[in-house]
This record gives sequence, C-alpha cells and structure tokens, in this order.
Amino acid sequence: MDVDEFREFGKAAVDYIADYFQTIRDRPVLPSVHPGYLGELLPKEPPQTGESWQEVLQDVDRIIMPGLTHWHSPKFHAYYPTAHSFPAVVGEMMSAGFGCVGLNWVASPAYTELEVVMMNWLGKLLGLPEEFLNCSDGPGGGVIQVTLRFLLCLFWMTWEVDPTLKEADIKGKLVAYSSDQSNSSVEKSGLLGSMPMRLLPADKEGKHNQCRLRGSTLREAVEKDKADGLIPCCVVASLGTTGTCSIDELEELGIVCKENDIWLHVDAAYAGAALVCPEYRHLMKGVEYTDSFNFNPHKWFLTNSDCSAMWFRNTKDAEEAFKVKSTIQEEPQYEYEIEHWQIPNCRRFRALKLWFVMRIYGVQGIQKHIRHQVGLAKYFEKLVRNDERYEVLISCLGVVCFRLKGEDQLTQKLLDRIAERKKLFIMPYYIQSKLVIRFVICSRLTEREDIDYAWNEIISLTPVTRKQLSNAPIQTVRRTLSLKNAGSIVNKGIVTDINDKIKVELFI
Amino acid sequence: MDVDEFREFGKAAVDYIADYFQTIRDRPVLPSVHPGYLGELLPKEPPQTGESWQEVLQDVDRIIMPGLTHWHSPKFHAYYPTAHSFPAVVGEMMSAGFGCVGLNWVASPAYTELEVVMMNWLGKLLGLPEEFLNCSDGPGGGVIQVTLRFLLCLFWMTWEVDPTLKEADIKGKLVAYSSDQSNSSVEKSGLLGSMPMRLLPADKEGKHNQCRLRGSTLREAVEKDKADGLIPCCVVASLGTTGTCSIDELEELGIVCKENDIWLHVDAAYAGAALVCPEYRHLMKGVEYTDSFNFNPHKWFLTNSDCSAMWFRNTKDAEEAFKVKSTIQEEPQYEYEIEHWQIPNCRRFRALKLWFVMRIYGVQGIQKHIRHQVGLAKYFEKLVRNDERYEVLISCLGVVCFRLKGEDQLTQKLLDRIAERKKLFIMPYYIQSKLVIRFVICSRLTEREDIDYAWNEIISLTPVTRKQLSNAPIQTVRRTLSLKNAGSIVNKGIVTDINDKIKVELFI
Repeated sequence: MDVDEFREFGKAAVDYIADYFQTIRDRPVLPSVHPGYLGELLPKEPPQTGESWQEVLQDVDRIIMPGLTHWHSPKFHAYYPTAHSFPAVVGEMMSAGFGCVGLNWVASPAYTELEVVMMNWLGKLLGLPEEFLNCSDGPGGGVIQVTLRFLLCLFWMTWEVDPTLKEADIKGKLVAYSSDQSNSSVEKSGLLGSMPMRLLPADKEGKHNQCRLRGSTLREAVEKDKADGLIPCCVVASLGTTGTCSIDELEELGIVCKENDIWLHVDAAYAGAALVCPEYRHLMKGVEYTDSFNFNPHKWFLTNSDCSAMWFRNTKDAEEAFKVKSTIQEEPQYEYEIEHWQIPNCRRFRALKLWFVMRIYGVQGIQKHIRHQVGLAKYFEKLVRNDERYEVLISCLGVVCFRLKGEDQLTQKLLDRIAERKKLFIMPYYIQSKLVIRFVICSRLTEREDIDYAWNEIISLTPVTRKQLSNAPIQTVRRTLSLKNAGSIVNKGIVTDINDKIKVELFI
Repeated sequence: MDVDEFREFGKAAVDYIADYFQTIRDRPVLPSVHPGYLGELLPKEPPQTGESWQEVLQDVDRIIMPGLTHWHSPKFHAYYPTAHSFPAVVGEMMSAGFGCVGLNWVASPAYTELEVVMMNWLGKLLGLPEEFLNCSDGPGGGVIQVTLRFLLCLFWMTWEVDPTLKEADIKGKLVAYSSDQSNSSVEKSGLLGSMPMRLLPADKEGKHNQCRLRGSTLREAVEKDKADGLIPCCVVASLGTTGTCSIDELEELGIVCKENDIWLHVDAAYAGAALVCPEYRHLMKGVEYTDSFNFNPHKWFLTNSDCSAMWFRNTKDAEEAFKVKSTIQEEPQYEYEIEHWQIPNCRRFRALKLWFVMRIYGVQGIQKHIRHQVGLAKYFEKLVRNDERYEVLISCLGVVCFRLKGEDQLTQKLLDRIAERKKLFIMPYYIQSKLVIRFVICSRLTEREDIDYAWNEIISLTPVTRKQLSNAPIQTVRRTLSLKNAGSIVNKGIVTDINDKIKVELFI
C-alpha cells in the first residue's frame, strides 16, 4: 500500500468511524451472532496475494460490525465506561502513524518528555499532593503504564527485609491486603507477585451498606498475621471499587499502614476521573498517607484505551524494582528515567492522545463531561427510589446498584428478561450476598432520554407489580395495567405472568 | 468535538502522517533537541477552555516533530525494527474508533473470535506445529498479549510441586534459565515471577562465535542446581537474541528440558517473522519440544505496536495461572476463553490490524518484505567483509554485528563520530566482551541506496586508514585521501586526525 492509497483508505476509515457514531444510537447494543460465527465467514488461511483495502473495509462492515457489542451505545450500562473521544481517536492514529518507541529519552525525546509533562497536567487536574508530581522537587513522579495493577510485583522486591532472614524465608512470609470488593486484577497482581492477597470483608454497616474497607478490619488482619509470624507489606485501597464504586476509608487505612510500615496503594481506576471536579476531592481524604496512586484515563477521562496513569511518592522504589541490571547502563540524558518506573520495555506514545484530550476539551470540558454523567446517574437513582418495588443499595458517581425488594429470584428474573430482549446491556453483581443490578453510565453519548428509555425497559420487564410486592411468591396474573413511575414517564402495557413465565407487550 | 469536526481533524491527521512518510527520508534521523526542551514549550497546566484541533495539529508540528527520533527513517539502524505499515495504522485507528473492550466473548464477540482466527492464520503462516493452534483438536492455542514475556510469572503457579513440600518452601527453590544474550525483559520476567533467572553463558566456540545457548551448558547448570536441592522449572530459549539475533540450539535445549520435566519457552520476538519464509524454518528445529512460543508481529511483521503473539501447547496451564477465582464464573459461551490465557483484563482490538496486514499484504507481500530486508543486510555484510579493516562477528537475518579489527577503542571512536554527526543511528553492543556495532535493517522504507549511504558514512568516519591498520596505535595524520570500499562507492574527503580528535570534511 503506497502513501496515496493510505490517504484514501485512512480517510474512508475516518468516515466509517464517524458514520458509526452517527448511527450507534439506533443499533442494537448487543449483537445477535452465535459463538463461532466469525470463523464460518473467514477463510482458514490468509490470502496468498494482497487484497484491496476496499474489500477489507467492506468485510469490516459485513463480518466485524455484526459481532460488536457497542460499548459506546447510549444503551450500554454494563461493566464500566471505556473512554472514547474523537480527539483521543486521532491521537491514537497519529501515535500509530509516527510509530516510534519510547524506550528511553534518546529513542524519542518527545515521547518521554510529553509523558512527563502530561502526568503533571493530569496530577494537578486531580488535585493530587504536589509531592507525587514530576515537577516537584522530591523523588515523586508519574508515568503512563500499560497495566498498572501489576504493581504488587514490586513490593517484595523493594521490601526492606529483616536482615536476619534469608530471601527465601521472606518470600513465604509476605502478605498483602485488599477489600473483597476490589477489582479482580488486584487478586491477579497478588498471584503474579506470588504473594497471598487477603481479600478483607468490606463493611456491612452504615446507612447505605457502603462496601468500604475500614481501618479496624485491616488492623485486625494485620495484627493476626504479625502474630503468626507473617510480614504485612502492602494494602491496595479502592477509590471506587469495580462492583459498586465504593470508596474505601483511605484515612483510616492510611493510619494503620503508617503504624505498621505498610505500602499503601490507591486504585482509583474509574473514580479518579471525578477528582477533576473539586466537589469530589473529599473522596480522596487521606491521600497524604499513600505511597502510590493510579487512575485510568481510559475509563472515564475521555482518553481511549489503553492509558493508565500511575504516580509514586518515591519513584526510586519503582526504579529499584524494575530497572534491569544486565544491560549497558549509560548516564541518563534526561532527569526523568520513566522507562524504569514500569514493567514493559516498549512504550507507545500514549501521552499524545492525553494531550489532545486535555487541550481540545479543556479542564471545563472534562468537568462538564463528569458532572453530566453523574447527573444522569442521580436522575436514574431517583427513578428507582420512586418505585417502591425497588431498593437502591449503593449509588456513587456513575454507578447505581439496585434490586427488587425481596428474594434474589425476582431480580434474577428481571435480569434474564432484560438479557433476552437485548435492548439494554446491564450486569448482575452481588453485594453482601444479595443479587443487585449494576447500572452504569458508560457512553459519553448517553442523555436523559436514554435513561428514560432504560428505566422504561426495566419497569416494563419487572416481574412483579406494585400490588404483588406484598404478596410474594408471585401469583398468576393476567391483566392490563398502567405502569407509572416517578417523573413524567408513563407506559401502558400488558404484563402476562403465568407460572413464572412472563410475556410483556408494551405500547409505548 | 462533534462528528463533523472529527471528519476534518481525522482526515487532516491522515494527510499529516502521509506527508510525514513522504518526507521522512530527508529528515535527520536523530533530533537535535536538548533534554527538557518540551517542558519549556508547553504551559505548566492544561488549558481551562478547549482549543481548536488546528492549533493542536500545528503544535504537533512545532513541538513534537522536532523531538522525534525517526524509527522509520531509512537511516535508522538502531535497536530493532518496530513495525509500521499503512494497513496497520488504519487498523489501529479503527480499533480506537470502535473503542470496545474484549473482556470476554459477550463483551464483543468479534474481538475474541477474530483474534482466535488470526492466531490460526499466523501460526500456519509461520509453520508452527499444528498442536499449538486454536483450530487443533487438543488444548493448544494462541492469543495476542500486551506483553508476553511476563510468562515466567505463571511457572511457579502451575508448577506441579512435590506434595511433601510446603508452598513457601517451593517458592524459594524454583529456578529458571536463559542465555546471557537474551532480552533484558527475560530477566525482568524472572524478577516479576520472583524466581532467580540464571543467565547462562552463550557459546564462544564455532566458526562465527555464534552466541547460542547450548544444551550442554544448560545440562550442567540444571544438574548443579538439582544437586543443590533447587527445582529447575523453566528455560527461555531465544530464537533470535536481541543483541545479535543468535539462535539458541533449540533441539539440544529441548532434550534437556524433556529429560528434566522443565517448561521450554521460545522467545522469537523479532526473528519469528522470518518463519513466514519456508527457507528460514530450519531455525526453529526442535520446536516440537517447546511448551510455549511467542513472537512479536509488532517488530518485523508490519503490524504496528503493540501486538505480541503467544501460543501454548496447553492453554489449560495458562488458564490455571491467570484465571481469577473471585469473580462470578459463568458458563463460557465460546469455546476459546482467551481472556484467561493472559495477564491483563483489558483487551484492545489488536486482531483487527493483524487482519488488515495479512489481507492487504497477502502471504507473498509479507514474504517479500522479509526477503528484501534480509537481502539488504546481506548486502551490507558484504560491504563490511570486503573492507579488510573490519570484521563481521555475527550476521543473522536483518542484524549485522561488526567491528574494526583490533582494540575496542577504534570501534568506540567510530561510534562516537557517528553519534556526533547524527546522520545515522546505530548502536553499540558487546559480544563476549568485544565492542561491536549492531547494524539493523529497521525501516520498511530502507533500500539499497540507504545501505550505500550508511556504509559511506561509516567508512568516511573510520578512524583508521587501511594503511594504518597494521600500524596501530593511531598516528597523527593530515592529508587528503580517497576512501574506497567494495562495490562502486567512492568518496573523497579530508580527514584530520590530531591527538585523537578527528575532523572530517567530505565532498560527496
């Protein structure tokens, strides 16, 4: 493919993406393909001679598009947001277009330097303590990582061990802690670091059953392990757990960590983006106790995947862990050797898209995005709370966890129906053994009308009428009813519920 | 930024990349910026209000471009190739444009399924044993990894331990092996896996001093460790070391691994791409002994970074290691749960660019690329061999390691001069304590005229004339001379060499 063909193909691809986003609202959020569909459409081997880009682009439409789950559909409320913005897409394209590798400063100075500056911009934008920034006088600093939760791997390597113990003895004694609500990747990090990761129980008390890890829980576990001769070395606190966006009690945990000389890492993967708005900075109360902090701009910060931001209070710790000693070590030419603060050798130009996003949106544009999405979640929460059949267990930022009152089977039935209709994509979750529905504001295209659409879909499939609520188990009913919920949404429909099978016909 | 602005910005970016590639030959391969240059050009904080994409694109030209080391310049012969092709750039753009996440099959069926099929295409293209492929009947399979050399982390987890030993005891006893020529990331993997990685000496014998790891070396180390009560568990063999592209003796190593029940992993990061051409498949003789195999299409296979291909003889081993147990486990809908064969949770749509590359180039197009680049290296090697001042230590595929005969200081002086002039980018390396110059065919734009250019530059800066060769140490000379080397290249110039300082003026 020569340069002129690239101009044609590239511009056709830009139009393809633009057209996709202009039609995404009207596409079913979930695909209807069967497992293995794609293998049936493709030859078993690559073609011997090259094909035209036009044929390939047609096949994207024919083969790929039907098999996409549209994460940026306004009807997508599952998992968590994965960031998307046009400035970031162009940033990715240009990064691929330049195609350099930021192995170190010499390998492409702009790669390293833009990353150092962007991590300052970002840290200031979140209101992180000054000492975490590259521009501070001390040893703190930030770097964009491929995947940042491998962090734990570094702990035993940097652990200042009791000099009377042998390394092999220490390896078997280290122990790390997190909440049973933390992301599964935290557990994975423990596996990789070959260190037991205690998933401590989040609290069940409090007004809203908040799933936070408390200081008292940590203290108890640490003291028990110490009494058993183990070495507590690391705590991963969640500033916004994956399941419920719960906020661990950072300050309480910080005090325990400080007393026991334990590394405190904060995983703010999703919720960190909210810190752009000063009104949410109270969520990181206690951040002054932390040793490292990460958040993923690729989740909620309009910066396409992958882009994970990681700050260390002392980058020398990371350097000690990751710097390979066998290669020729030259005198560094640039004061920030960020290539040694991470695991992979190979660095793409992720800072470019971050730069594009922060400049083209501006601080106010990003704040507006976050506030708009939180506002949509609050609006949805209000709809749920105004329906007496439902209870909201946790609502934080863009995540609302709710359920039908009563036994799990009701909520399960609702989930099954929603999954079967494929008009919405939402996910189940368990909070303290109770089945809930996680409703997450994901797409940046989501508007109030999409929330109304989602709630209509949910109530139209709700397997219990308001009257039935007090008469569980479900009785056989057949009648026409008017479903009315808070706000101005009124639906009429026929709900047929015979022996646990429900047929719903709505006239919207 | 609305969709229409994206169309404009995106197309302007396509043109920017196209223009960049049309002018890259004329740009100095190395930048002339000073460390910290970029911080001086950028504000200390992000802008409060958004800026136009036109301003940003102008700043790419003003701020980023001067700070790039041009990896795709035909004058770039350092490190190793990082792949770039227009189909892959468009693939990256579309992957960002769709912006889905391949968490599992449901999260976007096309993501998972295309990857499964592409790993079959790719495995067939390389001639890998059938049992490594997803389409085989057995438990083998391939997956695209973010970074594949973290592999070692999995070994102790999957290690079938002596049931009489406690886990903590085993952790301290495991040991892994690689060559002292292997990539630094292999050592890093050992660090991460918290396992000692023995870097065994590569051979110094043989006609060309080939830097291969031999079976006898491995056997000796394994036997010693076993005698010391340790547990040898893993060998990483290099099919093309980073430094010299040496090929470890896979078959010899395989026999030792088989006898001792040791996991054998092959790292073919760069050289794996050559297996596309049947004439290079002899390089993987012994592959039938291996348990896992990786190569990076993002190095030499025209597929932009990042894209690392990894095959397992038995994917259940990987699954055992990486599958997190704490999350809700649903019945898999698709037979290939590739999300459990890797470390990160988050998967971008890397298979898309691989598909674009294999279709638009075709098998023959990719073979042509490899053969062309090897041909250029052979041409360069011939130029070097025809100059009696030089010796070639190792030449394999696109990598030629050569030096000036005699003391290292001569080669060092040459390297210093080349670095000072910045007309070429090449790197030093040590082979068995001898300083060499690594000359690598990197850019896909490199042609024979660029090799001539490079060799002209090298001989014009060579700090020893043919006559002086027999009269080291270097004497002070001042004269006009005609530099002549093999082939048709003739330069005239003035070389001034006074007290180890050289001034060169060439009239080309």
